[in-house]
Amino acid sequence: MSSREVRLAARPVGEPVPSDFELVEVDVPAPEEGQVLVRNLWMSVDPYMRGRMNDTKSYVPPFQLGKALEGGAVGEVVESTVDSHAVGDLVLSNTGWRELAVGPAKHFSRVDRIDAPSHYLGALGMPGLTAYAGLLRSAEFANGETVFVSGAAGAVGSMVGQLVKLRGGTAIGSAGSPEKVAWLKEIGFDQAFDYHDGRVTDLLAKAAPEGIDVYFDNVGGDHLEAAIASLRLHGRAAICGMISQYNATEPSPAPRNMTMIVGKRLVLRGLLVSDHQDLTQQFRAEVGAAIADGRVQVRETVVEGIEHAAQAFIGMLRGENTGKMLVKL
Amino acid sequence: MSSREVRLAARPVGEPVPSDFELVEVDVPAPEEGQVLVRNLWMSVDPYMRGRMNDTKSYVPPFQLGKALEGGAVGEVVESTVDSHAVGDLVLSNTGWRELAVGPAKHFSRVDRIDAPSHYLGALGMPGLTAYAGLLRSAEFANGETVFVSGAAGAVGSMVGQLVKLRGGTAIGSAGSPEKVAWLKEIGFDQAFDYHDGRVTDLLAKAAPEGIDVYFDNVGGDHLEAAIASLRLHGRAAICGMISQYNATEPSPAPRNMTMIVGKRLVLRGLLVSDHQDLTQQFRAEVGAAIADGRVQVRETVVEGIEHAAQAFIGMLRGENTGKMLVKL
Repeated sequence: MSSREVRLAARPVGEPVPSDFELVEVDVPAPEEGQVLVRNLWMSVDPYMRGRMNDTKSYVPPFQLGKALEGGAVGEVVESTVDSHAVGDLVLSNTGWRELAVGPAKHFSRVDRIDAPSHYLGALGMPGLTAYAGLLRSAEFANGETVFVSGAAGAVGSMVGQLVKLRGGTAIGSAGSPEKVAWLKEIGFDQAFDYHDGRVTDLLAKAAPEGIDVYFDNVGGDHLEAAIASLRLHGRAAICGMISQYNATEPSPAPRNMTMIVGKRLVLRGLLVSDHQDLTQQFRAEVGAAIADGRVQVRETVVEGIEHAAQAFIGMLRGENTGKMLVKL
Repeated sequence: MSSREVRLAARPVGEPVPSDFELVEVDVPAPEEGQVLVRNLWMSVDPYMRGRMNDTKSYVPPFQLGKALEGGAVGEVVESTVDSHAVGDLVLSNTGWRELAVGPAKHFSRVDRIDAPSHYLGALGMPGLTAYAGLLRSAEFANGETVFVSGAAGAVGSMVGQLVKLRGGTAIGSAGSPEKVAWLKEIGFDQAFDYHDGRVTDLLAKAAPEGIDVYFDNVGGDHLEAAIASLRLHGRAAICGMISQYNATEPSPAPRNMTMIVGKRLVLRGLLVSDHQDLTQQFRAEVGAAIADGRVQVRETVVEGIEHAAQAFIGMLRGENTGKMLVKL
């Protein structure tokens, strides 16, 4: 059978460009014993993928030049050699960036049919769990506290704010356009601002005149500096991502107020969702119920066709998405 | 009775200069009911005092212009109005920067007579407890781990390294002169380097080719950047001080590798000794015994006379001390 996949043609320097990617038609072999053949319905583009495009040692190996990229995908089994997986089963895997995927059945987790399977890549998937574990574990959020989240209109950030509201806290978010800010207020954020409207430190001081207890960092740079200034005694920051840095060709200067970490006894804690898979069931049950009864709103920005996947990824890094950025295959 | 005290004459800009301080002769009143009169024998100069000389809100109020400075002091009761304090008792207080002090008895803690009462300001005092609590609590050090400490030849740093060795770990230290480096090796550090000998990142990579588990930060800036690069997965940093920044008039650009906090799931935790007073007894018993039987070495740099206290403080910020910097009154 014939499929298309997206390969890394060149390692991006700074902001990725379309020529860094290559769409290739390939023959997919029939599944061998123990394998399944899956047609992907949805694939994810996520900020962390930018790091894997660099040839640097990190927590995951870099993508290989000339090889297909990888990432979250939801698909349907079209051919199976194992009892555990039936044709038609909905599965979650890391075989994104391709239309058809073949591989060991154990690499494809069966998931329940739900109204919007794409949620398994966003609100009910890796970004949602990142928000959940980051807020409750990394940042040790206590009900009722005040939380500032940057990149608040993204897949992770929008979930952070809504989880805070579900737990009686105050949610403050920053985003990159007036439309996003309006959406944040619509879904319950107490305060939201467009970071283009001034110095982030000033904007945050205005939004949180009494300071914040928790910062959930998706952006880094001046957002982290503003948060360090605003955090109260014993405040905590979950360092989840620093999207402002991913395309940087020069290392960015640190927050210039790092000494405040001492006097305020702040805790900055790096967060990687893979450490928190044990929370998956609890998280899906809680957030699934909140989505079902409307207490949590989910928004997705959908690009159609694998031929536009690279553009979706580039656009996501530019902030063109509201909520989760997805590619429908 | 007549005494001398050191007052803050001007708020230092950058590195403090002698004219920022003023030595004044004052009359000390007789102690009122509930008060004691104490002759200070030793006073401490500590890095944190530099922050209090700025007119900025912090965890302690700034020193007031024209008023006597404050800080740790060990003295002897010379007059008492209370049963709890007898003439001749050794007391620890925050009445440094003056020869005679009068005040409520409860502000003067009675301490046991020991061979070297000056240790109450260093190895058995605030700096020692800072090392103890920072290593065991803030950095969650586990026996046998590898620890890098900056400012290792200072009062706090030299204790950190020796506590690591007492617990079967590997101690790596940086300091500012070949003499200090030699002393660190003498007291048991496994590796020590002079940070003037190259980029700290390179020097640390050479000293700890397999990386470190814990960083104890007394310096900030490029030392913190080097540590972030060297820390292993789930590494921890106790952020105790950033002496490289205290005299800075411009914020420092480093560390420039903050994104590594995410992938390595690092934890940076601000440390202030006042949160850990509950450990005092346990700490003094353990470290006191280790000093007594020679497992922990104590070094002090002593300046004589209150008229040289300002110079001792300025010199300490420049790194002129090895071990604790003290003024003998």
